[in-house]
Amino acid sequence: MNPLDCLFKPRSVALVGASADEGRPGCVVFRNLRAFRGRFYPVNPHRTEIDGVPVYASVCDLPETVDLSVILRPAPEVPELLAAHAGKARCAAIVSAGFAETGSESLQREVVRLGRELGIRLLGPNCLGVFSPYQRLDTLFLPRERLKRPKKGNAAVVSQSGALLLCLLEALAFSGRGVSWGINYGNAADIDAADIYDYLAEERGTGVVISYLESVADGRRFVAAAERLAERKPLLILKAGKGESGQRAACSHTGRLAGKYEVFSSIMRQSGIREVSDFEELLDAGHALAVQRPSRGNRIGIVTNAGGLGVLAADECARHGIELPPLPEAVRQRLHENLPPFYSVANPIDLTGQVRDVEYLTALDSIRDEYDGFLVIAHTGVIGLSLRLAELLSAFRAVSGKPLVAHLTSGGITGGLAGRLEKAGIPVYPSPERAVRGLRLLLNNGEAPWG
Amino acid sequence: MNPLDCLFKPRSVALVGASADEGRPGCVVFRNLRAFRGRFYPVNPHRTEIDGVPVYASVCDLPETVDLSVILRPAPEVPELLAAHAGKARCAAIVSAGFAETGSESLQREVVRLGRELGIRLLGPNCLGVFSPYQRLDTLFLPRERLKRPKKGNAAVVSQSGALLLCLLEALAFSGRGVSWGINYGNAADIDAADIYDYLAEERGTGVVISYLESVADGRRFVAAAERLAERKPLLILKAGKGESGQRAACSHTGRLAGKYEVFSSIMRQSGIREVSDFEELLDAGHALAVQRPSRGNRIGIVTNAGGLGVLAADECARHGIELPPLPEAVRQRLHENLPPFYSVANPIDLTGQVRDVEYLTALDSIRDEYDGFLVIAHTGVIGLSLRLAELLSAFRAVSGKPLVAHLTSGGITGGLAGRLEKAGIPVYPSPERAVRGLRLLLNNGEAPWG
Repeated sequence: MNPLDCLFKPRSVALVGASADEGRPGCVVFRNLRAFRGRFYPVNPHRTEIDGVPVYASVCDLPETVDLSVILRPAPEVPELLAAHAGKARCAAIVSAGFAETGSESLQREVVRLGRELGIRLLGPNCLGVFSPYQRLDTLFLPRERLKRPKKGNAAVVSQSGALLLCLLEALAFSGRGVSWGINYGNAADIDAADIYDYLAEERGTGVVISYLESVADGRRFVAAAERLAERKPLLILKAGKGESGQRAACSHTGRLAGKYEVFSSIMRQSGIREVSDFEELLDAGHALAVQRPSRGNRIGIVTNAGGLGVLAADECARHGIELPPLPEAVRQRLHENLPPFYSVANPIDLTGQVRDVEYLTALDSIRDEYDGFLVIAHTGVIGLSLRLAELLSAFRAVSGKPLVAHLTSGGITGGLAGRLEKAGIPVYPSPERAVRGLRLLLNNGEAPWG
Repeated sequence: MNPLDCLFKPRSVALVGASADEGRPGCVVFRNLRAFRGRFYPVNPHRTEIDGVPVYASVCDLPETVDLSVILRPAPEVPELLAAHAGKARCAAIVSAGFAETGSESLQREVVRLGRELGIRLLGPNCLGVFSPYQRLDTLFLPRERLKRPKKGNAAVVSQSGALLLCLLEALAFSGRGVSWGINYGNAADIDAADIYDYLAEERGTGVVISYLESVADGRRFVAAAERLAERKPLLILKAGKGESGQRAACSHTGRLAGKYEVFSSIMRQSGIREVSDFEELLDAGHALAVQRPSRGNRIGIVTNAGGLGVLAADECARHGIELPPLPEAVRQRLHENLPPFYSVANPIDLTGQVRDVEYLTALDSIRDEYDGFLVIAHTGVIGLSLRLAELLSAFRAVSGKPLVAHLTSGGITGGLAGRLEKAGIPVYPSPERAVRGLRLLLNNGEAPWG
C-alpha cells in the first residue's frame, strides 16, 4: 500500500465546510461527494443533516479515521480546524485560498507544521483537490452543469493551476476522452508534483501523465521524480511562463519565480521528458499517448487523398525533425502495378480524389515495414470513401502495431468515421499539422527513454 | 466593368458535359447550377432535357454569348469543344484533369493557344472552378451532402489546390463563417493567382483574401499583384512545400518546383503580406480579419479569469513578438481601488474565479487607451459569469474600435456566449494560443501596409 493511496484512492472522505446553500462551494462539493464510492462524512457545526445525509459537528466526532478530509473553510480558520484532525485523518486537501499565494506565508507555514506534527499529509492549500471517475471522487467546487467531467480513461492530469486543471478536464470531456485522475496541487506546501509523479509511476491504471506547471520549488527533486515517471510511462509537460512577459505573468499568478525557461527545457530534453508547446498540443499528444504505444524510430509514411494536405503535413514533419524518407524503388514498382497511373507514388502517397477505401490499405500494406509510424489523411467528401475505411485502418493498425494517427477533413462521413477510428484507438485530428504534432510524441527520435 | 466579371459575376453560364447520371460530376454540377441566379444552359449532344431543363447539343446552339462556360469533359476532347466556343463564351473554366499536371504539356499549350485566338479567358485546366453564395454560382463537383458549403461572407478563398479549396470551404462552413468567393485555379494556364488578386483588390464585397499556394510560375508578376492587393485589404498566404520533404511532396503534387521557401518568405514579409504557418492559422487569422480592422500598433492588454491561461497567452505573444507592456501606475492604482484586493492587477489582469461579468468591463475600460488590441480570456465555468458578458464586451468593442478577440474554455455557457460574441464581430478561439495567433494578424508590427 502506497502512503498516498489515502489521497488517490480514499476509502472514506470527510468534507469540512459542507453546506446546504445552493451555489456555495461547500454545497457543490457536498453534492459531488454524495456519489463517492466509499464512506462520506459531511462536517458542519451548524447542521445535523443535509439532504438527509447525517452531518457531524466536528471531525472529532467522526466514527473512524478518514483517508481524506477536504477542507473548504476560510484560510484563518484552517489551523484550528486542522488541529482538530488529530488521529482523525490521514490526508487533508486544503481547498481554501489565502495562504502564500496572497502573501500569507506564516499562515501556510503554520499549517505545514501542524500537518507534520499530526502525521497528516496535505494537498494544497489553494487547490481544487482531486477528481477520479473510478472512485467517483470529485472535490471540484464547480457544479456539473458548469463543468462537464471526463469519463474513465488512462490519462492522469496533474496541474499546478486550478483553472488549468478545469480547462484540461473540460476539453477532454468535450472531445470524449477519459482520465484516471485529475489533480491540482496548488501551493504545494507538502504534497508536490514530485510526490504525485512518484505515485502515478507505480499506478497501473494510468498510462500517460499530462502535466501543466508554471514553477518548481525544488528543481532537483522535481527532475528526479519526472525522470522516474518518464522511465515507466510517457510524461508530457506544458511549462508556462517562458518568455519575459510570460514569466512576469506566471510570477504574478503564483507568486513564485518561474526560473530561466531555457535551463528547464534543456534538462527536460536530457531527461527524456517530452515537452509540448501549447494547450492544444498537450491534449493532442496526450490523446495519442493514451491510446498507442510509442515507436522506437522517427521515420514516417503519409498516405493522403488530398495532395495539398500531404504537403502541409510534410512541412510540419520538417519543423519537428520527423523524417519522411522516399519509398524504396521496389515498393514504388509494386504500387505502380496496383494503383491507377495518375496516383502519386511517393511519400506522401497521394491517392487523389479518385481513391476507393481499399486503396488506403493497399498503400499502407506496401509500406508497413518501411516506416516507424503512419499518418493517414482523408478528405472524406470524395465519393469513393465510406465508413469501411475505418475497418481497414483498424485492421492495418492491429497487424502493424506501429503508431498510426489520422486527419479527416470536416463534413461528409467524417463524424461516423472519426468515431469508429477513435474506438479502434486511432486518434483523429482536425488539421494535418495537428495530426503530425500528435504523432510526433509517439515517435522516438533518440530522446525518450520509454518505448 | 472588369474583364474578369465574366468569371466572378457571370450573368449566364453554360455547362458542357451536363449529365443526368446520378453521382457523375456532370450531374452534380448540373444540380448545383440549377440554383444559379443567372441564365443556365446545360450542354450535352445526347440529351434534349435533364430534369425538365432544356439541354443544348452544342455551345454553337446557345441563344447568347455566355459569360462563363464550365467544361467537364475528358482532356482529349477539350480542344475541339473549346474551338466550338468561338463567339459563344467570354470565359471558360476547364475542370478536366489530364493536362500539364500529368505530363500532357502539349495538350495544355493547344488549349491556351485556342483561348487566346478566340478571345476566351481560361480558368484551369485541372481546377474546381468557382463558388459564390451571392450568385449561387457553384461549379464544385461534390454534392452538398458530401461537402457543406459556407454561407455569404466577405472572405475570398483562393487556392492553387482543389482539395485545399474544399477543405477550407468546409472548415469555414462548419464554423459558421461565410465567404464572398471560393476559387481554385489549378494549372493556371491563363488566369492565375495574380489575375485573381487584382480582381479581388477592386471588388468591394471582399474584405479579406485567404490564399493557399504551393508554387508560383512568374514570381515577379505574383509579388506585384500580391502587393497591390495587400495595399487595399488584408491578404493571408499559406505557402506549402517549405522544407525539403515538403518541397518534394509539393513537386510530386503539382509537377512544379516550389522554389526556395526562404526567398519567398522574405519577399512576402518585405511586401507586407502576412504569411501564416498552418491550416488552422489560415482560418483563425482569416476569421479575425473578416470581422475586424487591423490596428496600427503591436501592444496588447490581456484580461483573464484564469491565471494559467493568461500565462500561456503571454508565452504565445512572446513567440510572435507581440508586446505586453505592464500597466501604467495610475491605471494600477485605479484598478486596485475598483477591484477586490486578491485580483492580480498586472498585464495580464487576472480577475480570478471570483469574477463577475461587469469586472471585465471595469478592467478593459481602464486600459482602453493604453493598448492597441485586447485579448479576453474567460473560463466560463465560474459562477459569476453570464451571457451578459457578451453585451459588455460588444459595448467595449464598439467604443474602443480596436482589435478584440476572445478565448473561451469549453462547456458551461460557452456556446451561448460564443454565438453572441461572434455576432458582435468578436472572434472566439478554442485555445489561448490560437486566440493570440488570431489577434496577431490584426496587429501591425511595422510590416503590413494596410490599416
